[in-house]
Amino acid sequence: MPPLTRGALTFPSPQSSQISPYLPPPSLSQPQTPIHVTLTFATSLDSSLSLSPGTQTLLSGPLSKSMTHYLRSRHDAILIGVGTALADNPSLNCRISGVGGYGGEGLKGQPRPVVLDPRGRWEVGESSKVMQLVREGRGRAPFVVSRVVLDGGRRRLLEECGGKVIVLPAAQDQEERKRIGWVDILKALREEGIKSVMIEGGGAVINDLLRPDNIRLVDSIIITIAPTWLGKGGVLVCPDERVEDGVKVPVERLKDVQWIPLGEDVVLCGRPQQS
Amino acid sequence: MPPLTRGALTFPSPQSSQISPYLPPPSLSQPQTPIHVTLTFATSLDSSLSLSPGTQTLLSGPLSKSMTHYLRSRHDAILIGVGTALADNPSLNCRISGVGGYGGEGLKGQPRPVVLDPRGRWEVGESSKVMQLVREGRGRAPFVVSRVVLDGGRRRLLEECGGKVIVLPAAQDQEERKRIGWVDILKALREEGIKSVMIEGGGAVINDLLRPDNIRLVDSIIITIAPTWLGKGGVLVCPDERVEDGVKVPVERLKDVQWIPLGEDVVLCGRPQQS
Repeated sequence: MPPLTRGALTFPSPQSSQISPYLPPPSLSQPQTPIHVTLTFATSLDSSLSLSPGTQTLLSGPLSKSMTHYLRSRHDAILIGVGTALADNPSLNCRISGVGGYGGEGLKGQPRPVVLDPRGRWEVGESSKVMQLVREGRGRAPFVVSRVVLDGGRRRLLEECGGKVIVLPAAQDQEERKRIGWVDILKALREEGIKSVMIEGGGAVINDLLRPDNIRLVDSIIITIAPTWLGKGGVLVCPDERVEDGVKVPVERLKDVQWIPLGEDVVLCGRPQQS
Repeated sequence: MPPLTRGALTFPSPQSSQISPYLPPPSLSQPQTPIHVTLTFATSLDSSLSLSPGTQTLLSGPLSKSMTHYLRSRHDAILIGVGTALADNPSLNCRISGVGGYGGEGLKGQPRPVVLDPRGRWEVGESSKVMQLVREGRGRAPFVVSRVVLDGGRRRLLEECGGKVIVLPAAQDQEERKRIGWVDILKALREEGIKSVMIEGGGAVINDLLRPDNIRLVDSIIITIAPTWLGKGGVLVCPDERVEDGVKVPVERLKDVQWIPLGEDVVLCGRPQQS
């Protein structure tokens, strides 16, 4: 079926076997296993995701794009924050050769897109890329995790093709009133049968997950770094400072570290100390 | 002479031969060649040099330290800004096995320390580490590049052991009044017979050199990245934004890129596009 492999990507096996130990293990098919969380993103040398808020900046090379789709093929779900959904109109599917819609049957290997949207800001519609791909049989319908019930139009659109709105309460923490706690988010996804999730950004989501309270929920971190500086005013990956006994200390250091050169970029694989 | 090799370091040859193409070439012995400039530093994943201004943070592993000393052995001079001199009380010598003071004769292979100190703030004295090493025959006396003549005590101390104060005018540029232009600094060093300089930091010096006007003066960039986040409030490597035709664009992208894993860290070698 040649038309179905249009746009299909491949990822070279030397690099994929180096990355594989950081991905959800096959034992996840056991019903009781907790959800595996992979945090992944690409930055510049000055730790920026993009040149300015609300814009998309191409940082990494073509191999890095293939890697992202390889990673997606190994997770049940991919999650982004609403800021990224609004800025990028992302496809949120997997285009690795052999998955459903790209040479494979049905939607096999296609991850579930999840948009974290506490205030219900995402204007998902027929023309959203993610919905176009659903209609073409090349991606699953998104789940939206929100504090509010989306209006009927958006909710119906999602539900008609297998998506849904998952309504969760705000975090208990006073400071975090506007957010939803990660424990609740991951628990809700697990209850949907999702055994692994790859969290892709953007800045607010990443910096929130790098907080000491949250990083323990992350199993693996896979970061691509491009050899470029974007300069001041970019969307920074930079967690809040960490103070212990009145002294500022590093926020987090990765363990089980591997650096994998990938074209002009490098891929860092590691695990949080506390995971 | 075993006592002379106390504290001597070695750097493994697989990595040193990967880095070697980015270092000053032997043809620099020609009298007319321009000065070779290598910019080098170590950052966290969030592009911080240290946890906060005026503090020193150990980021990279022991192999990275050996690499720094290997790089120093391949340059005629090493340059730091006065902020780093004040914060770190640095040794500014080379401890690679075989250089003068570490198994080698005299001061062979010891780079000239240069402190960029436009306002004459560096309180160099008998007890400064760099001066202790000079007395022990393990390092050269520093040159200070300044807009002002240092007071007699500090100047005499430097001059008695082969150091000096190089007085240069402030940059012409109005914005840069308090600084000394890099063209002038490099010209002055070249006139002192220095054919290669490794610029090591700190934040102000690095960010200034990454500006489009200055980056063209840099031949090679060698950056160590450690798998840790320091969090907000650190000393950032992040150049000023670059705008072309009213549009924000990346400040700089490296060419001839190589990523070299080094223990838990990675070393990025490259050249500026414009050099």
